[in-house]
Amino acid sequence: MMKLYETRIAPNPRRVRIFLAEKGLLDQVELIEMDLQKGDNLTPEHKARNPMRKVPVLELEDGTCISETMAICRYIEEAFPGTSALLGQTALEKAYIEQWLRWIDFYFMLPTGMAFQHTSGYFKDRMTPFPEWGEECKRQAGGFFRFLDRHLADKPYICGDQFTAADINALCALDFNKTIKQRIAPDQGNLQAWYERLYERPSIMA
Amino acid sequence: MMKLYETRIAPNPRRVRIFLAEKGLLDQVELIEMDLQKGDNLTPEHKARNPMRKVPVLELEDGTCISETMAICRYIEEAFPGTSALLGQTALEKAYIEQWLRWIDFYFMLPTGMAFQHTSGYFKDRMTPFPEWGEECKRQAGGFFRFLDRHLADKPYICGDQFTAADINALCALDFNKTIKQRIAPDQGNLQAWYERLYERPSIMA
Ligand SMILES: N[C@@H](CCC(=O)N[C@@H](CS)C(=O)NCC(=O)O)C(=O)O
Ligand SMILES: N[C@@H](CCC(=O)N[C@@H](CS)C(=O)NCC(=O)O)C(=O)O
Repeated sequence: MMKLYETRIAPNPRRVRIFLAEKGLLDQVELIEMDLQKGDNLTPEHKARNPMRKVPVLELEDGTCISETMAICRYIEEAFPGTSALLGQTALEKAYIEQWLRWIDFYFMLPTGMAFQHTSGYFKDRMTPFPEWGEECKRQAGGFFRFLDRHLADKPYICGDQFTAADINALCALDFNKTIKQRIAPDQGNLQAWYERLYERPSIMA
Repeated sequence: MMKLYETRIAPNPRRVRIFLAEKGLLDQVELIEMDLQKGDNLTPEHKARNPMRKVPVLELEDGTCISETMAICRYIEEAFPGTSALLGQTALEKAYIEQWLRWIDFYFMLPTGMAFQHTSGYFKDRMTPFPEWGEECKRQAGGFFRFLDRHLADKPYICGDQFTAADINALCALDFNKTIKQRIAPDQGNLQAWYERLYERPSIMA
């Protein structure tokens, strides 16, 4: 059986769990919980799985380890072709979804993560927080809420009519903003409607 | 003809040019130069191509625009299947290369870019530099030189025997370190040998 090294409350592993659930593959992996704040991910054992010492890591049956959320999702997408496509089918769909995945990673998830780490001191045992930089990152993440709200004015999902991995990743990044006390604003009705639409899917609680 | 909005001296567009050159497709695109420091990328015209106002952007013949380096490369990989694969062929190859692409993006290219922006003030018309944070990012990028040097001890290319997009991206990130005065150290012989091996490929000067 494949193993997923992950952390229940952390946003990156959550993306993989939802991805698996959408494909009906959650029962294909054994979930192995790691306590990040305690430093379960900083051990030599975990460094051998992922030299960057992060979760999630997918371990295949032969012991091969794959790190990085979207590399894990790519593996699942390619290795289980019968399941619903979440990364696109044509060249253009794949590229369009990847553009959005990168926008969400670089301009939403990453600033949110840096805002959290640099303002909370959660990982201050392993990094130096720069609170002013954290505040700037929080503003950047806030800008992405507004960008998404405008973008969703005329479509049900981020890439159009189809639910894709971009929706999963944006949702996880958005929820991660709770840790920096940033939520959907009352005037962001499109974003709110999309958020509620997503929470109707059972996968979101995976 | 497809158009590539790009900047000769900038590292992200360079990744796309080398990717195209490796596939023998450089003559399929018209290169359109943008002066970033002058703000060519901040105009309404460019914002319509890419709301993030960055280069590179690939414009297809029908006017569709694709942003984000690796989304552009994905499009090219998928739309020109006869050309040499740079993103892998099996599920595991694709995932392994994507893992590396993400490590290079998050833990090498991005800290290098932030080090440059936060220590040089190059874009201070459009962002607030935090020099101390820039110094920390420079140290992180320096750590990736050492990581790559160890990794390359027993293989010619980052993902093994085959040249892939991971080599292109690591090379562009490494060269970008010139702007923060960070170079391969004398004791990083594996990295130096890989670097010279890459510069034997004509594509690298594209
Ligand atoms: N680029 C990585 C990011 C992974 C990441 O940062 N994971 C966090 C949890 S959401 C982590 O492991 N943090 C522990 C640490 O930084 O020590 C991915 O996409 O998987
Ligand atoms: N995540 C983007 C990054 C693109 C990017 O940051 N491009 C730089 C040039 S290398 C840029 O356009 N900078 C102009 C600015 O930030 O105003 C990608 O992978 O394409």
